[in-house]
Formats: sequence, structure tokens, C-alpha cells
Amino acid sequence: MPMQFDPPSGTRDFLAAELETRERAFAVIHAVYTGYGFEPLQTPAFERLDVLLGKYGDEGDKLVFKILRRGEHEASGEADLALRYDLTVPLARVAAAYGSQLPSPYKRYAIGSVWRADRPGKGRYREFVQCDLDTLGSRSPLADAEVLCAQNDVLGELGIPAFAIQLNSRLVLSGLLEVFGVPADLGPGVLATLDKLDKLPPADVEAELASRGLAAGRAGELVEVLAAPDSAERVRAALKLSEQGAAGLDQVDRLLSLVAGQVPRGRIAFTPSMVRGLSYYTGPIWEATAPGVPGSIAGGGRYDHLIADLGGPDLPGTGGSLGIERLLLLMPGGQAGRRGRLDVAVTVMSDDLAGLSFALAGAARAAGLRTGIYLGASGRLGRQLKWASDQGARWCLIYGSEEDAAGTVTVRDMDSGEQSAVPAAELTSYLASVGSAGRP
Amino acid sequence: MPMQFDPPSGTRDFLAAELETRERAFAVIHAVYTGYGFEPLQTPAFERLDVLLGKYGDEGDKLVFKILRRGEHEASGEADLALRYDLTVPLARVAAAYGSQLPSPYKRYAIGSVWRADRPGKGRYREFVQCDLDTLGSRSPLADAEVLCAQNDVLGELGIPAFAIQLNSRLVLSGLLEVFGVPADLGPGVLATLDKLDKLPPADVEAELASRGLAAGRAGELVEVLAAPDSAERVRAALKLSEQGAAGLDQVDRLLSLVAGQVPRGRIAFTPSMVRGLSYYTGPIWEATAPGVPGSIAGGGRYDHLIADLGGPDLPGTGGSLGIERLLLLMPGGQAGRRGRLDVAVTVMSDDLAGLSFALAGAARAAGLRTGIYLGASGRLGRQLKWASDQGARWCLIYGSEEDAAGTVTVRDMDSGEQSAVPAAELTSYLASVGSAGRP
Repeated sequence: MPMQFDPPSGTRDFLAAELETRERAFAVIHAVYTGYGFEPLQTPAFERLDVLLGKYGDEGDKLVFKILRRGEHEASGEADLALRYDLTVPLARVAAAYGSQLPSPYKRYAIGSVWRADRPGKGRYREFVQCDLDTLGSRSPLADAEVLCAQNDVLGELGIPAFAIQLNSRLVLSGLLEVFGVPADLGPGVLATLDKLDKLPPADVEAELASRGLAAGRAGELVEVLAAPDSAERVRAALKLSEQGAAGLDQVDRLLSLVAGQVPRGRIAFTPSMVRGLSYYTGPIWEATAPGVPGSIAGGGRYDHLIADLGGPDLPGTGGSLGIERLLLLMPGGQAGRRGRLDVAVTVMSDDLAGLSFALAGAARAAGLRTGIYLGASGRLGRQLKWASDQGARWCLIYGSEEDAAGTVTVRDMDSGEQSAVPAAELTSYLASVGSAGRP
Repeated sequence: MPMQFDPPSGTRDFLAAELETRERAFAVIHAVYTGYGFEPLQTPAFERLDVLLGKYGDEGDKLVFKILRRGEHEASGEADLALRYDLTVPLARVAAAYGSQLPSPYKRYAIGSVWRADRPGKGRYREFVQCDLDTLGSRSPLADAEVLCAQNDVLGELGIPAFAIQLNSRLVLSGLLEVFGVPADLGPGVLATLDKLDKLPPADVEAELASRGLAAGRAGELVEVLAAPDSAERVRAALKLSEQGAAGLDQVDRLLSLVAGQVPRGRIAFTPSMVRGLSYYTGPIWEATAPGVPGSIAGGGRYDHLIADLGGPDLPGTGGSLGIERLLLLMPGGQAGRRGRLDVAVTVMSDDLAGLSFALAGAARAAGLRTGIYLGASGRLGRQLKWASDQGARWCLIYGSEEDAAGTVTVRDMDSGEQSAVPAAELTSYLASVGSAGRP
């Protein structure tokens, strides 16, 4: 592909085959989320700059694609709009804008592109799709359970093999910091380092904790407990000394018990070393992982102050998102089940017969079949059968002077090569009957 | 709605009800276009600035949303990317980029947002959806007929009342200019003015033609012929004197004959005064109109040089687009058929029973029903039934201590108020049977 016709760096063109796989995944997500009573929301691709900036920290702000002012203001070089960076800030704006028009609680899902001026790389894009599911306005653990179960159902229905869900609570983490005597100002950094226990050897994590200023003995104890095979049990025992920690364990156990009927035993486990990067979570947090892909394929948690922090109303919230670009890599048989472009291909044997061939295509379509007509310049049957085969057509309709004289259409089965002469007037019903009896 | 939470000027938030109507329309378009063997294409929201600029004339260039360079280059105030202005320039880029990987001819449809920094107004948006259908690489009139019939099918399946299709050819218009002795340099302006015959009185059109420099006598003759009730017949007679005009009439008649079996007689007519604004058309052109909306609701035509002019390969093309924002206004019964948010609403009578209620919700979902559970803090049944009713639920499942003791679930029909005690273990099969027998 010559460079000048590439899509912009970090973006992609989706041709039919890939797009169909993506749309199939989105249809599954839509169906599952609708099945839980979530409703869709769609917001504009861009927001006013002041709505976006200052919401993602300095690092995030640098990744925002800004839109130049227009007309006489263009020369100022200033921006007034920006492409959305996620689907959460627009949700906070919508919650503020439509307030009482929205159901309470407001259970919404959104599937949409977001844009980040990140360095593009393997599996990292500047335009990518986020699939978010959130409930605003409920403190019930049932709301957390709904989000978690809906995500679990999506992963199952997409056929993701052998995925597992790690469950924790921010209160468990706070309790741990308390019990292990981590000074409050070191807390966030310590958690960020502990989050690496699934990637780095324990000794490296311990060293990083020490470099953050944590006393060596405490760093060693923390890592020892969290990296142990029985860490869940050891943390449970340790947290008896912390009110916060005990409350976090209650959250974890409540959620485990609520989802027990729907998430198979063994797929979900209390995982005290799972931190989940974003600092805005306030209660239960969870992540899903699958063999063969680094990082998480889904995640979520409760965030009771985020919507207010983002400029929205003061509503408790819980939600999750899917790493759809990674999930698409894990979906089985993307191509295997792919149908051809057409069910029926119609030949055009001469200009005089083109109108009748076009009418036959209409009749095939009336039987519910995807039908195309030959649009090339060749009058040779062999050439046109090659085209029909390239389309993956199941049948080819041949209508030449012989058929015209006899009032029939030759229906060729493209798999077997068998041909039948069907009276033209009966074509729709013939195709409807063989079509419904045919291959899936 | 407080101003600061509005979406940006000229853009819209789509909440559930409106979004569902839109998605229903897109699903119809997708199904019809796929039925004709067109395949989907999706390109990025933005393109490199040089790909977009200079393709739409000076007026168009002014409407392009430009994206500021990032990082150290942001301070330059320069743009390097821009939001797509239409779906045709990206199509030309894709045709150039993927050449032989694409089927030949390449029949593609695209449904996607485009952005124009136009003055927002009634029915005019800065972010709106285009639905394009194009075939690149075929000169066959059958390709034009496919596009025209597919658009006709979409309008029919969307239930657009009493729409009509005007058919013409650029060659008919060129022939007219020739026969009426319009100087070549006045041609484009004269056509732009004649295009107003459906909006302005003939005398105004005549005056505008004269102001463009056309001799008064010729302006009068042209308007007289085109505004006449029998204009089609008079133009046919006049064009006998022009080779181009006669070729244009052949195009029109060929297309009328090809679509005759699929577009009802009386819906489509040769309309020599229909110009279709864009100057890139080279052959047949058509527009659809409907009572009650100004302008066209769909249109298309053949453009054999456009793709090359846009920087793509030299491929003949034919295509059309739908005025989807106008079509949505014309679609019947947008709200009438709307279902509630839920089929089944599940109460939570106490914290102790919440887990069992959550499991019942899972069982209802397993019966294929959209199911939500009460997420509020009230333990009162009346309050929860009100919530169930607000969701538009058909059934409410009640599970309190009595039901728990009896091992049953109370299934309340929200229409009739009738209640049945169903053994908990039989809930899925019970709901599946009443669900499939129920209202649509």
C-alpha cells in the first residue's frame, strides 16, 4: 500500500471481513447489555475543550486531540473543541444535562470510538472503540453484581477461552496499607507498584517499594503476603485488625455470593494484589484476564465520587468496560463462519436480456437472498461463473437466449455444479424453498 | 438544561428512545444494501489534512474541522489532521490504498458520521450521519439500476409515505444547453439556476438566468420548456437535434426500463429540470422527494471521473446517498411501537433475599427476557411495583419471605395485575412459555 494512501497513523480502515467480525461482537454486547435493562447512549465525537481538559491529569490532557477554531478565529491557532478521550466524561455531562429526564438509577451502555494521541504501536491505536456499562444513582451491591455478571456473560458469549475474573475492593487495599503501617502519603504509589505483582518478580516489586520510600521491612512483609500462593487467606487474617479492611472483605464476599449462581465457581476469585490502576474507585473492583493476552480484557468497579469530580451531579456509580480490541483477537473462528458476499449471482448473457436478468435478481431478493448481478463487460459464461464463484454465491442464475425461448431460468448449484431449469414465474418460490432447506 | 452541559453547538446527544429509532433505520439500510451484495466499509473519523483540503472547493474547505498538531508542535497553531467532511473522499483513498485487495467492481456502503462547521440551524447539524452506496469499476447501466433500486427499497421499507423519484441525465442537460445555444462558459451557472424551478416561480428563474448573462430570449425559451406541464415530452422532441442529448435520453430510457419491475410505475419519472447540484456527475442522475419535506431525501448518479479527481484510481463510479436526518423525521410510528426498557422487573424485599432475587433475574434472562432488578433502597412493595411499571415491564417477580417459605415466586402480570405462584425451579420454563405466547 503506497504510504500516501494509508489511513492516518494509529487509525485503521475496516474492510468488510474485519468489520463484520467487529459488528458481530458489538451485536453480542448490545444484546447482553439490553438483556440486563441497560439503555444505549450516544454523544458527539467532540466536546467543548473545557469539558475535557483537566479531567485526566496532565498526562491525559496531552493525549487529547484538539480542534482548531474556525473562520476568522482559525488564525489564532487556538482550539475550542476536542475529540472525546473516553465515554465517562460525556456520561457525566449527560447526567448533569438531562437529570430528571433520565431514569433513576440511570443504567446505560455506550459503544463508541474514542481518540488519544498516544504513540501508536502493536495493538495500540489512536482511534479505538470503548464499550462501557454504568449504573449511576444506586449504592446497592446488586448494581455492582449486574455489571459484573453482564460483563461475564459478554465474555462467555463471545467465546473467550478460559478467562478468569479477579475481584478485590479498594477498602481491602486501604485496610492493607493501614495494617502494614504504610504512611498515607505513600499509599497511591505503593498501590501502583503492588499492581505489578502479576508482571514482575517479587524481589523487583519489593525494590521498587523501597525506592518509593517504604521501609524495607514493611515492603518485604507486604510483598511476602501478597505474592504467597495463599495470599487471599493471609490477607483475610491480617485484615481482622482493620475496620476498613473488614468492610472491604464484606464487599468482596457479598459480591462473590451474589454472582455465585451466574459466574461459575473457579472463574472468579478474591485477589488482594489486584489494584486496578485508576484511583477513582471507592468500593469493589474487578478485572478479567485471559491466557495469551497481556493485561486485562475487561474491568470495572464502584466509583461513588467520580461523576461529581468530573463536573456531573453527585451520584454514586458503578461500571465497567471491555477491552474490545483485545477481545476481538481472542474471538474464535472469526473467518471460519464467514459467508460469501452473495447467496445468488445472476449472469447477463446479452444487453437485450439484461433487463430480464435484472428482474430475476429482484425475484431472488424477494426470496430473502442476497443477490447481485454481473456488472462486467464480458458476455462469456465461463467468465461470469468465475465471478459468481468469487462472490461465494451458492447459486448462479443463467438466463440466455435458450432460457428466454423456453421461459425458464437455469439455476446452477455452485457447490455441486448441478443445473435445474426452473420456470421463470416460479423462481422466487423455488429459491425460497431450496434456500430455507440449504446450508446455514 | 443549563447551557454549560449542552453538547457542542450543532451536535446532539442521543438518549435511548431517539437512538433506538435511528438504529432501526440503520438496520433496514444495512439489510437492504447487503441484500444487493454491497459490503460495508468503515474509515477513520479523521484524515490527513492534505487528503481532505482542496476537494470540496473553497466553500467546502472552510467547513472542515481541523485538528491541531500535538506535543511540541501544538504551539505552532497548525493543523495536520481534519475530521472527514463526507464519505466519498475516504472511499477514493481506500480505492487507491487497497486496489487489488478489493473486489472488482467494488460495491460498498458506508454509514457514518461526518462533520461540517456549518452554521447550525433547524435540521442542520455539524455532526450528522451519511449513508452512502457506491459501485466503483463498472460502466454497466445495471450498476446504476442497482443503486437506484436499493435506495427505492430502503425508502419503501422505512415506510416513507408517497415518495417520488425524479430521473434525468447530465447528458440531457448538456444537450439542452447545446440546443438552446447557451454559451459553454455560462453552462454551470445556468444549470444551478434551472435547478431552482421546483422552488421559485418561472419568472424569477428567468430573471436570474438573464442576470447570469443569458440572452433574454433564450432564458425565456428554456424556462418555458422546462416549466411546462409536458416538459418531458417537449425536451424529448427538442433533443432530437443534439447527439449528446439523444444519448442522455437513451440513458434515461434504459434505466427506466431496467427498474420498471421493481420501482412502481408512477413513482419514477423523467424530469428534465432536475439538475442535482453537484457538478461531478457524468451520466444518469436521480433524486427522491417526499411531501412535507423541502429538498431531496435521497439522490445519486453516475460519476465516471470523480474518484480520479479526488486522488484515487481512474475508476468509473455510480452511487447514491440518503438524507437520513430528513428520513428519520418522515418515518412513521417512531415511538408507537416502542417497548419498555424491561420485560421482567424483579423486586428485592430484603437484604437477606437479595441474592435469591438476583438469581431469579438470571433465570428470567435465561428465558430470553430483558430483566432488571430493583436497585433502590426502599423495601416497600408499592414503591417497587411503581418502579416496575416505570420500566414498562410486562411481569414483576416478587420474592418475599412468604414465597421463600413456599419455594415459589409470585409472577405479577403488570397489565392485568393478576398474580401466579410459580415454583422457583420452573420459573425459566414458565416465563419462556408465557413470553413466547405474549404480546409482540
